[in-house]
Amino acid sequence: MEKYHKLSDEAMDTLVDNLEELIEDHGDSSFEVEYHSGVLTLKLGDRGTYVINKQPPNKQIWLSSPFSGPKRYDYTESDGSWRYSRDNKPLDDLLNEELSRTFDKPIRLSLSSSS
Amino acid sequence: MEKYHKLSDEAMDTLVDNLEELIEDHGDSSFEVEYHSGVLTLKLGDRGTYVINKQPPNKQIWLSSPFSGPKRYDYTESDGSWRYSRDNKPLDDLLNEELSRTFDKPIRLSLSSSS
Repeated sequence: MEKYHKLSDEAMDTLVDNLEELIEDHGDSSFEVEYHSGVLTLKLGDRGTYVINKQPPNKQIWLSSPFSGPKRYDYTESDGSWRYSRDNKPLDDLLNEELSRTFDKPIRLSLSSSS
Repeated sequence: MEKYHKLSDEAMDTLVDNLEELIEDHGDSSFEVEYHSGVLTLKLGDRGTYVINKQPPNKQIWLSSPFSGPKRYDYTESDGSWRYSRDNKPLDDLLNEELSRTFDKPIRLSLSSSS
């Protein structure tokens, strides 16, 4: 469990830092990111709200996307990524795709702790 | 859209008030409820975290339960409830069931604006 918290905290902190930078550069005052004790909220004005949160009982990170709905992510030892079991796609890949469309420029977040 | 915000704000405010009271009575310091601009977080210690948030583009309230996963709720004019389209069950019914088990006593939240 300690390892889960370490790894998920790293992923969440990386996310927060990257999203804060992204929003600052973007300059739309209706966009904001907040992080309170394991729950990250990314507000994209009238496009909706992302919620990304730690779910310690399952050792997962849960995502709720205004564009694609909910998904649950498990840590993958082999490459340090957080992957959705149904399609094996990493969390950062999904966010990069969706946020590139939202911000209308290529977004390249990376959450892999091994990279 | 104004109506959506009024109705969803009422539901979220009622939830926050009720959950705060519940947690205060319960007296477990690992339980907490937070509400920031449309996103409610209910932390239940090692049992996990609920996230309940407004999703304005869909005029919905989205729920993520550590026990039953994600669901999306639409406002129902006829009785002022927020219902999950797949089983027509109101949000407060789901929470009452799950929280009654968690708090080990009957919980009777009501979110219907017409009640």
